[in-house]
Amino acid sequence: MSIAAMQARVREGVPLAGAWGIEVLSYGEGLATLRLPAREDMLRPGGTVSGPALMGLADVAMWVALLSLSEGRDESLTASLAITFLRRPPATAVLAEARVIKRGRTLSYGEVTLRAEGAAEPCAHVTTSWAATGSK
Amino acid sequence: MSIAAMQARVREGVPLAGAWGIEVLSYGEGLATLRLPAREDMLRPGGTVSGPALMGLADVAMWVALLSLSEGRDESLTASLAITFLRRPPATAVLAEARVIKRGRTLSYGEVTLRAEGAAEPCAHVTTSWAATGSK
Amino acid sequence: MSIAAMQARVREGVPLAGAWGIEVLSYGEGLATLRLPAREDMLRPGGTVSGPALMGLADVAMWVALLSLSEGRDESLTASLAITFLRRPPATAVLAEARVIKRGRTLSYGEVTLRAEGAAEPCAHVTTSWAATGSK
Amino acid sequence: MSIAAMQARVREGVPLAGAWGIEVLSYGEGLATLRLPAREDMLRPGGTVSGPALMGLADVAMWVALLSLSEGRDESLTASLAITFLRRPPATAVLAEARVIKRGRTLSYGEVTLRAEGAAEPCAHVTTSWAATGSK
Repeated sequence: MSIAAMQARVREGVPLAGAWGIEVLSYGEGLATLRLPAREDMLRPGGTVSGPALMGLADVAMWVALLSLSEGRDESLTASLAITFLRRPPATAVLAEARVIKRGRTLSYGEVTLRAEGAAEPCAHVTTSWAATGSK
Repeated sequence: MSIAAMQARVREGVPLAGAWGIEVLSYGEGLATLRLPAREDMLRPGGTVSGPALMGLADVAMWVALLSLSEGRDESLTASLAITFLRRPPATAVLAEARVIKRGRTLSYGEVTLRAEGAAEPCAHVTTSWAATGSK
Repeated sequence: MSIAAMQARVREGVPLAGAWGIEVLSYGEGLATLRLPAREDMLRPGGTVSGPALMGLADVAMWVALLSLSEGRDESLTASLAITFLRRPPATAVLAEARVIKRGRTLSYGEVTLRAEGAAEPCAHVTTSWAATGSK
Repeated sequence: MSIAAMQARVREGVPLAGAWGIEVLSYGEGLATLRLPAREDMLRPGGTVSGPALMGLADVAMWVALLSLSEGRDESLTASLAITFLRRPPATAVLAEARVIKRGRTLSYGEVTLRAEGAAEPCAHVTTSWAATGSK
């Protein structure tokens, strides 16, 4: 599946991803890199990207990483997501790098590192588990 | 501060809250109840409210609970947020009940229970910590 | 099952519970209260109960709360556990109150509040999910 | 500080580390690898290492990783710890690899990967934050 097709797949599956303009930059073998453009309505006072926007970006990034292991077919849903904010990101685009740590039959688990575009250090770190639908 | 004034305060502070139409139903003494109306763009395939929408709602609900303890002045930011999805909510409005468990000088902590409107059992549970700005 | 029988069941199932002298004070209907006596080998410098001791106590408390819903038969295992430390407990006994929030076929979820014996405010808060064996 | 001196420092600071025979295998530059020997009293029914033992090991491993950045002086305490169990470890020794993701003035954050000795895949994954004493 091409990157453009994956991006279309994700925006269809998660309407927020389209509304926010989330882009798929690369994906494959349990990894994925996504980008959230800078948007006025994603900011918090002080000019920092809002927490919900970062959480949504991380959630979508992990889904793409999972889809990369299943040829674009994955009906699992987020079972849990934990985010820790490490530094306030500036009001720029944000990159998310997702990595599947375990792909299981009923539960998968991975982590996502979020960075302001151009920054060396992460602004947030996420761990998340996904459950096969029907298993809860 | 009236409920209407609190709602205006929150929508100003977190533009997503306004874009999503989040309502403040009640607040006081470290508690807050908020409502996310049913919206087409918040859904996932299968007609369930998306994870990012629930996370955003919970994040805002905890902020209102914290504001209730400080007369509407609170410059702290989310330090971490962990959500566990318990049941897929139907495509209805969602209520969030937030409770401050600890109000500290540099770190506060609380929980948020999310329910589909009219449902007895929660669809998700959140714990979150908040850091005073300048303390990270 | 009597409280004494439940305590024996737990110490058999989790040898650490016996080694640490964990007591079952009460249990029933998805709730359980356990007690960790003050012990020299559970302390950290400064005279505070160590994190691993509190985590172990919370883990065992949730197991008892789950057992209370299944007549003492439960082969599920901890799938995840998240603890937030709120206040340093003094070097006293610690009480754990566990509550099952969701009992599911393959995944259950609950919370545990930890308090130094005699204290009004919690010293730590835990959320934890449990998976039926064979489901991972 | 030699590895032997670091191990002595840790066993002095966390008596459980000594009671469980936790060994420091290597450390430096925000990384640390520790080993928990197989022990009868660490097991759960079915011959798997107990959750509290893995949590305690991870907690100590992160402390060593933090100490590696501060020449063995670190008075911070665990603020939160979240563990996800990925596979049941066999009744063998367990290795923990800790990595500091952020070293902050008041809050530090990192992750720990746990593996049964000789296994390629992790049995558990931990994220944890640490607070400077006096900052809570």
